[in-house]
Amino acid sequence: MNNFRYLELETWLREGITNGRWKSGARLPSIRQLCEDHKVSKATVQHALHRLEAQRLVIAKPKSGYFIPHERAVKVSSKAQVTNAPTLITVSDVLIDVMSKNAAFDLMPSFVDGEKPSSIVALNRSLTRALRRQKGHLHQYYDVPAGDIHLRKQLAEMMHRRDCAAQPEELCITNGCQHALFLALMATCQAGDVVAVESPGFYGALQLLEQLQLKVIEIPASYTTGIDIAALESNLNVWPIKAIIVTPNFSTPTGSLMPNDNRIKLLALAEKFDIAVIEDDIYGEMGFHSATQPLAALDEHSRVISCSSFSKSLSRDLRVGWIKGARWHEKIIKLKLITQLASSSSTQQGLCDYIADGSYHLYLRRQKQTLLQQRDQLLTYLCQNWSFADYTVPEGGISLWVTLPEHCDTMQLYSQLSRSGITIIPGPIFSISNQFKSNLRLSFNHQWTEERIKALNVLKKYIA
Amino acid sequence: MNNFRYLELETWLREGITNGRWKSGARLPSIRQLCEDHKVSKATVQHALHRLEAQRLVIAKPKSGYFIPHERAVKVSSKAQVTNAPTLITVSDVLIDVMSKNAAFDLMPSFVDGEKPSSIVALNRSLTRALRRQKGHLHQYYDVPAGDIHLRKQLAEMMHRRDCAAQPEELCITNGCQHALFLALMATCQAGDVVAVESPGFYGALQLLEQLQLKVIEIPASYTTGIDIAALESNLNVWPIKAIIVTPNFSTPTGSLMPNDNRIKLLALAEKFDIAVIEDDIYGEMGFHSATQPLAALDEHSRVISCSSFSKSLSRDLRVGWIKGARWHEKIIKLKLITQLASSSSTQQGLCDYIADGSYHLYLRRQKQTLLQQRDQLLTYLCQNWSFADYTVPEGGISLWVTLPEHCDTMQLYSQLSRSGITIIPGPIFSISNQFKSNLRLSFNHQWTEERIKALNVLKKYIA
Repeated sequence: MNNFRYLELETWLREGITNGRWKSGARLPSIRQLCEDHKVSKATVQHALHRLEAQRLVIAKPKSGYFIPHERAVKVSSKAQVTNAPTLITVSDVLIDVMSKNAAFDLMPSFVDGEKPSSIVALNRSLTRALRRQKGHLHQYYDVPAGDIHLRKQLAEMMHRRDCAAQPEELCITNGCQHALFLALMATCQAGDVVAVESPGFYGALQLLEQLQLKVIEIPASYTTGIDIAALESNLNVWPIKAIIVTPNFSTPTGSLMPNDNRIKLLALAEKFDIAVIEDDIYGEMGFHSATQPLAALDEHSRVISCSSFSKSLSRDLRVGWIKGARWHEKIIKLKLITQLASSSSTQQGLCDYIADGSYHLYLRRQKQTLLQQRDQLLTYLCQNWSFADYTVPEGGISLWVTLPEHCDTMQLYSQLSRSGITIIPGPIFSISNQFKSNLRLSFNHQWTEERIKALNVLKKYIA
Repeated sequence: MNNFRYLELETWLREGITNGRWKSGARLPSIRQLCEDHKVSKATVQHALHRLEAQRLVIAKPKSGYFIPHERAVKVSSKAQVTNAPTLITVSDVLIDVMSKNAAFDLMPSFVDGEKPSSIVALNRSLTRALRRQKGHLHQYYDVPAGDIHLRKQLAEMMHRRDCAAQPEELCITNGCQHALFLALMATCQAGDVVAVESPGFYGALQLLEQLQLKVIEIPASYTTGIDIAALESNLNVWPIKAIIVTPNFSTPTGSLMPNDNRIKLLALAEKFDIAVIEDDIYGEMGFHSATQPLAALDEHSRVISCSSFSKSLSRDLRVGWIKGARWHEKIIKLKLITQLASSSSTQQGLCDYIADGSYHLYLRRQKQTLLQQRDQLLTYLCQNWSFADYTVPEGGISLWVTLPEHCDTMQLYSQLSRSGITIIPGPIFSISNQFKSNLRLSFNHQWTEERIKALNVLKKYIA
């Protein structure tokens, strides 16, 4: 129980801040005082304060204590509900450049640091064992199109634990989440159809829409609400929208966790207007403080296609994802068969063992702690050094969304910095309408090192 | 030099048969006579006769000797050059059924026999080593879209050895050959465009065309000529064909090796009518008697997209193929990136080592001998037991094309036999126009066992 004392204190402090017990600019009680008043250890107080600092509810001033920051609302990108006509799009070359540099979640992509983590050693051991166990002439057979049934059982169980009643037979193994999104769009849309997306939203989805010649409607989305339900409804009333792509759990770039009532409203709209809902759930297992439900858990009408993979949570080298295709399941399996026949059996079996023996869950628990710590390190850095910026404080995932002063042009910064070997992810690649020019996405996916701090300092110099 | 005595004898015998030295029905000189006349061992004579038997130029009659068969021309499917309008197609459910049963190249798909071959043990060792060598936090990075450059260097060298001057930078790693074909069609065509295919031809291509909503023109193809160049030209004159898919090397189902002059004519037509040529070269490395060139080797105008993979030659579980995209290379890389980001680095590196240390070429040499032996076993069986059938004698690949008496309906046979756990590959799935109903494809990809003979005997009973 002792573990949760810091949470109680954090809650008490947060309520005080919200209630106005301490005004903006005021100093909080000292650490010693808080220890005495609440009968907790110094470490507990520091932990609570650190968390509040990370959420920018308090500011640490060296040798002076903790203060309530001056009024500064979290500026969330929000757009008038103007309904633009759906358009065919062209994805920017910068995005292709970022992706070919392998830099989407990094600042210095050439820097591969440290020892191989023990979790990956264990995963590789499982993969190796699966190769060794491979029998007879199995190499002469393709796997079944839907993928290894044992792995699908493990995945169904993982979804069950998140309150989503999926059967193994309802799942199809893919070559990653992007491949799953691709299959979902191929199954639900035809060239020329209109698809709604979050704005800002995942660039990978925008690329797919371009390639499949689908028309795009951008719906404003914010860190606090997820996709704007009212804006979605007004667009549904006007345009023949066929499908919508959303990331309810820790959407990239903002890290937003869509509130439950908005999820329910979204599904009601989907039913009313008969559209497919394509859920990108790649960060769904990566909530720091509590488990999240997939949107598919609330799906009563078999119209949520849920896509995910192990690329963000475990390894980008595995190339294993999955899709719960709802009413489009059979069509999706056929599409997978046609576009690439099958997945690697031995990889699937190795991964399956790694999950079945508990290694994956153990790893995930630790990994979420690591990510939370790295997030807090990044937030503390930003809080202390980037007073000119606003940023979101995601409760999961691997990145946050920074709003720079309006004069900043992150596309320009991208070119300038790439000469120094630093790659930033500029805001405009998360939209098709040249928005978010003074935004950027920062990742906390990597170890917090001197090199990263230096890179952020260089970035600051260019901004200031 | 002694190794080639059987080839000299084979040539001498074949010339004699062609010249009419022995009339149809006549008995050949005895084995002892041939030994004396040609100063060769009994084994050499038997080897030569066995090969001629496999080619159905001679027939063995137990205790009587070898005879010239009665006039029976190899019946090659050939169609009048009727030009049907291009059509959107629907692929048969039987094909989906065959593929989900993992049975496309087998008779009894549930039967996985024997020890794991040493080649696969060695491959798995290379893959394991690659996993062990994986450094630091590489699992946090996606591979570059075009794929591992070292593997691409090995592939370029393999193409060089086949007279095709490919640079590593011109290649892109894919998730198998089907994935490569998919990328090639996405890069060259848009929904509604017309694509020409061989008839009979690879069903996987037909499935892709259906899915991408491309219209199909079937061009007759035969075992001896490959695609019918005159028919192709007359169709090019009438229809706005955007691309053509061909398998010049051991095309499935007939096993045809397209003659060089037809290749040259095909490329001249492609240039004249400005079409893309998509080459399926998956059997290109699997010529039994000599190396084959990819069609891309003759490509002077950068309009041949060459697709291949290791699935047929080495392992279907690897999921590694490649594509030489010619003038569409950049577009193809972008498409790969968008549809599945990247391939597994460690798998690519393991495979690269396996090729680089010579294991792959050693394996391939042995594997071709094995396949040739299995082909001859199948041919000998057919020659002795299926006198009602005609069949092709492929000089490479893993299957041959059987023509049954006209009353046979292989789609019906398919349903009847599947109840006995036997899966045949019926002719109609190689066409969109319900042709080839009395054809079937037989594979010699598997060890020649009693079980297989029994299955063929059951099949015979149903036919007779």
